[in-house]
Amino acid sequence: MNNIEKSVKQHCGKILSVGLICVDVVSVAKQYPKEGGDSRLLGTHWQKGGNAANTSAVLSMLGNKVDFFGAIPIPKKSDFHGQICVGFIKDKMESYKVGMDNVVERAGDALPFSTVLNNSENGSRTILHYRKGLEELKYDDFAKIDISQYSWIHFEGRNITEVLKMVERVVLYNSDDRHETITISVELEKPRRANSIELLTHADLAVVSQDFAEFNGMSSAVEAVQYYMGSCKTGAAVVCAWGAAGAASGVVGSSKPIEMTPAFPPKCVVDTLGAGDTFLAGLVHSRSRGHHLSAAVEFACRLAGCKVGFYGYEALRDFKHN
Amino acid sequence: MNNIEKSVKQHCGKILSVGLICVDVVSVAKQYPKEGGDSRLLGTHWQKGGNAANTSAVLSMLGNKVDFFGAIPIPKKSDFHGQICVGFIKDKMESYKVGMDNVVERAGDALPFSTVLNNSENGSRTILHYRKGLEELKYDDFAKIDISQYSWIHFEGRNITEVLKMVERVVLYNSDDRHETITISVELEKPRRANSIELLTHADLAVVSQDFAEFNGMSSAVEAVQYYMGSCKTGAAVVCAWGAAGAASGVVGSSKPIEMTPAFPPKCVVDTLGAGDTFLAGLVHSRSRGHHLSAAVEFACRLAGCKVGFYGYEALRDFKHN
Repeated sequence: MNNIEKSVKQHCGKILSVGLICVDVVSVAKQYPKEGGDSRLLGTHWQKGGNAANTSAVLSMLGNKVDFFGAIPIPKKSDFHGQICVGFIKDKMESYKVGMDNVVERAGDALPFSTVLNNSENGSRTILHYRKGLEELKYDDFAKIDISQYSWIHFEGRNITEVLKMVERVVLYNSDDRHETITISVELEKPRRANSIELLTHADLAVVSQDFAEFNGMSSAVEAVQYYMGSCKTGAAVVCAWGAAGAASGVVGSSKPIEMTPAFPPKCVVDTLGAGDTFLAGLVHSRSRGHHLSAAVEFACRLAGCKVGFYGYEALRDFKHN
Repeated sequence: MNNIEKSVKQHCGKILSVGLICVDVVSVAKQYPKEGGDSRLLGTHWQKGGNAANTSAVLSMLGNKVDFFGAIPIPKKSDFHGQICVGFIKDKMESYKVGMDNVVERAGDALPFSTVLNNSENGSRTILHYRKGLEELKYDDFAKIDISQYSWIHFEGRNITEVLKMVERVVLYNSDDRHETITISVELEKPRRANSIELLTHADLAVVSQDFAEFNGMSSAVEAVQYYMGSCKTGAAVVCAWGAAGAASGVVGSSKPIEMTPAFPPKCVVDTLGAGDTFLAGLVHSRSRGHHLSAAVEFACRLAGCKVGFYGYEALRDFKHN
């Protein structure tokens, strides 16, 4: 199978996005609140949240067939609020046409949520995440999925021990010559998870966030790509976006130097919540169509730049893409 | 009627608390979040909120007969979330035994809410209030109430034009010698309402918050009491609490100097949300029993000091009071 055939195959294949889904309760403030203050909100709304859920929704809006794989509670009958939360995210995912057949439903647990402060002056988002009582995805849940239907599986870097086993299952599947290869992408985003670096070992596309890189002592996107290349296999693409500074990318073992792609900020930055998840969706979308890494990174930068100019994700429906 | 008789009459009388009721959605953070960060919450819970609602609940816990007067929406049948919010605050007020018969119910409007960040390190509360679509109380709503059943009416300083008319109705009622006098208290708390000073004119007890005083250029509780005495009638008690610095108080026209009462902070300050409303309830409770101003202020300081040592209000049930 030559490269063009492979990219067509991947294009027609389905993507699976593995990780968190939650409710984002967004409060839009005129400015970032001063501690101890008492101010009025400009607005408030709910969004579907969670990195993997956001990425799957954007991938679907870009025209890909996508399934989401994560845990969702089945609230008790008496828990009306829980039912509303779960109903909300299910409706949202349906509206984005993301497949939810693989979702693991667990009785009686509470859906995680994030309280998000949006600063309308600069579009910054401050996330306060809460989860209690909803067990994370297990390898055993993942083992039940027929992965042969997917050409690409993306893993959100959380719940590391279990997700590592899931990644290894895909690696084992790929090692069988009779199988079409499933491309593996991994995102390390949360600054609190220093041990998640192991997940990079088998990734074809490894994406590390600025937060994660800074938490681990890096001071630029290029430095981060350089450093994390050391944890990736030969041929893996490594990408790190660094806000307004743009994104660095490189391929392990390539003679090409690490490349810096500029950001494409809108005139006015309105809402950076989910910008990283959108960037990632842009990368997966473009790479799964066989585009070169530098083209994919530019596409992802443009897509994320479009997103931060609007609240939420709906404006991405009008984004002109390749 | 001598002073003792009067205090007994007031003790047996009922208190009406006029103002806001809302849901406080409290997020407990390890520290105050840095803008743009992504952190985990330690916990999250709902509380009944709104200054006048909080004050009425604490007054009831102290053994007073209290009614709350404010606006509550009747959510649409399809608005399950709205129904949960309204059900929550109604249940809470019932559990606090606060009378809700006077409450004005308006169809189809959304209950206001506050997103509150509690910093578990120092107990600070940062309030982000949201209201849309629920009309404020009108004078016409208040005109329907039989105020003769109350010996004390407390007004939260908001929606100034309408509340001023309500206060004037009580003043007119009091001017009829056949009526028992209704004591009037007014709280000016929100820093954004510089025009609310007019409300002080008819107050028997005027309470201004540190936030309000600072917003208007004061730099201490004593300075604030001195200044706002100028807006109050002869004989009115004027009080300003200033956090850990304690509270200043004085009586307009009295030869006694303005007095400073120390705060009574607990060993560990856990939750300052509603501390001002609790302080106010302590003042009204003690004054309505005929206690001297300085004793009432000390009681209020002790009560508020007790409250900030615990989350919520339940611990106040065990507060030893006079």
